[in-house]
Amino acid sequence: MTTMTPSMAAAEQGAALRVEFDALLGVCSKLNEARPVEELLDELLRQARMLTRAEAGTVYVAEGGKLRFVCAQNDARHDLDITPRVDERRFLTGGLGGKTIAIDDTSLAGHAAWHRQPLRIRDAYDLPPTDTLKFDPSFDRLTGYRTQSMIVAPLVDRSAQVVGVLQLINRLNDEGIPAEFSARDLQIVQGLASMAALSVRNAQMRDELYRSHLDTILRLSTAAEFRDTETSQHIQRVSLYCETIARYMGAPRDWTRMMMFASPMHDVGKLGVPDSILQKPGKLTDEERLIMQRHTLIGAHILKGAENELLQFAEKIALSHHERWDGAGYPHRLAGAESPLEGRVTAVADVFDALTSKRCYKPAFSVDWAIEEIAKNRGTQFDPDVVDAFLKARPEIEVVFDAYRPAPPADESQTPINPITY
Amino acid sequence: MTTMTPSMAAAEQGAALRVEFDALLGVCSKLNEARPVEELLDELLRQARMLTRAEAGTVYVAEGGKLRFVCAQNDARHDLDITPRVDERRFLTGGLGGKTIAIDDTSLAGHAAWHRQPLRIRDAYDLPPTDTLKFDPSFDRLTGYRTQSMIVAPLVDRSAQVVGVLQLINRLNDEGIPAEFSARDLQIVQGLASMAALSVRNAQMRDELYRSHLDTILRLSTAAEFRDTETSQHIQRVSLYCETIARYMGAPRDWTRMMMFASPMHDVGKLGVPDSILQKPGKLTDEERLIMQRHTLIGAHILKGAENELLQFAEKIALSHHERWDGAGYPHRLAGAESPLEGRVTAVADVFDALTSKRCYKPAFSVDWAIEEIAKNRGTQFDPDVVDAFLKARPEIEVVFDAYRPAPPADESQTPINPITY
Repeated sequence: MTTMTPSMAAAEQGAALRVEFDALLGVCSKLNEARPVEELLDELLRQARMLTRAEAGTVYVAEGGKLRFVCAQNDARHDLDITPRVDERRFLTGGLGGKTIAIDDTSLAGHAAWHRQPLRIRDAYDLPPTDTLKFDPSFDRLTGYRTQSMIVAPLVDRSAQVVGVLQLINRLNDEGIPAEFSARDLQIVQGLASMAALSVRNAQMRDELYRSHLDTILRLSTAAEFRDTETSQHIQRVSLYCETIARYMGAPRDWTRMMMFASPMHDVGKLGVPDSILQKPGKLTDEERLIMQRHTLIGAHILKGAENELLQFAEKIALSHHERWDGAGYPHRLAGAESPLEGRVTAVADVFDALTSKRCYKPAFSVDWAIEEIAKNRGTQFDPDVVDAFLKARPEIEVVFDAYRPAPPADESQTPINPITY
Repeated sequence: MTTMTPSMAAAEQGAALRVEFDALLGVCSKLNEARPVEELLDELLRQARMLTRAEAGTVYVAEGGKLRFVCAQNDARHDLDITPRVDERRFLTGGLGGKTIAIDDTSLAGHAAWHRQPLRIRDAYDLPPTDTLKFDPSFDRLTGYRTQSMIVAPLVDRSAQVVGVLQLINRLNDEGIPAEFSARDLQIVQGLASMAALSVRNAQMRDELYRSHLDTILRLSTAAEFRDTETSQHIQRVSLYCETIARYMGAPRDWTRMMMFASPMHDVGKLGVPDSILQKPGKLTDEERLIMQRHTLIGAHILKGAENELLQFAEKIALSHHERWDGAGYPHRLAGAESPLEGRVTAVADVFDALTSKRCYKPAFSVDWAIEEIAKNRGTQFDPDVVDAFLKARPEIEVVFDAYRPAPPADESQTPINPITY
């Protein structure tokens, strides 16, 4: 080593500080990148290790009351690294089936999460035996790696919920030998833990929001089923026919998925039609038919004004699935593309299923006959493009038909509670 | 000024870098504090100004397609400061009624938000006239402050939505004279903008989630109304009676609010009861009564398995609001505190409203008579503590009764679509 003048030493320290600042700034800037949160956590762990000179580190995320490994880095033993999986949805819903540890005093990460308190430890193997802190040496025994100094910081969200743990292991001194983490290191890690918590919570909330919108749909479906003369199989089949047709039309994946989840709501407005009309075995009078037709308006009313796209989709479908391409449908006699594509797709799916199902006023027609009927009404009742996609999709349509064939009627008095599930 | 040696200069620079690092770390650490997001944005703006030596700055949040002022800081003119309001919910729902600016090319902040592109400007009054960038000098004219150099950074979330704008004005040089912002300054501001975007989005999502849970409840209520013989006024009154009783029982504010929003769902299971029983004018047979009583089980089924507390509340209420304190109720004949408090409170509210309302099988009884009836059944049908709170709350109960008195029956054929609103 050359002798350094004070100004050289200061300059070097300045440069190091600059690198540290940039590392922190880099993490900040990455917070909003449209990447899986696990990748962000991996990056965050890398920067935390750089800033604190930690040889190894781990991030856990809290799921179902346990801590799950999300990433692990170890400069001495890259064979122990766990890199983030790319599928963000699987991260959120769990599914690794991998290692978890309990949130309690049986491990240091568990302790930090349970007490929502960061730990700074000189040597994990040198904890006072009387202490509530217990280091779990099983991982070291498995791998032969020697954990010594540690920082264990819980990731705590704004409502004081633990969403994970950030753990740094073995600060290396200039000679590359494990030394103690400083109070300053802990401070840095806590800043990064704060960002990590926000990112994890953000990803979780996005998922919760999606599930919540779906939840509304499912509950309304459940409610609707108690009234409708049609079965949950009808709802499932129409949903899957819609998905299939949309796919064959070359619709974007999001739109196709929306069709699948929103179309089950197409008849929710039947909730508002009296039993005497809904369950009438014979032909409806003109007046009764008008009341029946109001189910489109009622459905749209139940679904209207939603902030989220899924329910907006469902509203469009409920309102327009009885419009006809030639403008002779109801409720608004919209012709062609005046009626939304969502409704035009559902119209084909719904009529096909009605034709192939037994109803109190008609037998079940054959698939061949029903498909011919749909084809015959191409350009009059139905959007020609939708019919073309439907005809192209025929093999898949038949697979759905077979898989969701109506079950023999259940004993209604025994099973009034019959949920649909996706 | 004294002459500095190189090492003194380097040390000073090192100290400055240390301050900068700590400022950034401080902002990171604050991200998860349980404080209104506006306060965090105010703090963030302060640190952004410190790090870039900006004399003034503004944060806007995007709301309803416009940018709304959230905070403003100006070291030269503290009379122009806008400090964050403390009520976080008002922040999220708007309500300042204050200044907004359009998201378009008519201002620099609007431009940055519209194009999702940060700007670094030497002098706002010296922009090429041919440029799409337009500085809006009206604020300067109003205040006499002279805007010169600027950084305008959009706050962009993970799905590339603009959630706001962070704007810094007039970088001061060592002599305190406005100078240009550096590329480095812009980089720093972008890091902070990223954090700001995440925080804002986080707060918005928390609010969206809450609204989404409420949305499920409201839509189910709307659906239920199409069937029930009872009116939306009944639902509103029961909701408000529950809120009042809970408050008089000294329940926590959250619990009280939950009661208010979840109790409207108590009869949602009537969706599953046939019209012939639901609307029968005469007395029900034993068998019909058993079917009618299933509305508790059906309601719980429609609401079951929710992740969110509001629907969990509603499920409990739907299931248990016909249990009795003496165990003679239905569906599970739960006695005393075996039945949840949510149901015990709703039971009193529901019966009181039934007594004071006209039904097809009974007239409306007077408030006095109904209250006496409730008091008489203290400890048999009803939880004594709930009845005591109800009796104490009598003046407020009467206010609700008067305010939500049943309206004269509407012409049903004209208005099949009759939403409830809160």
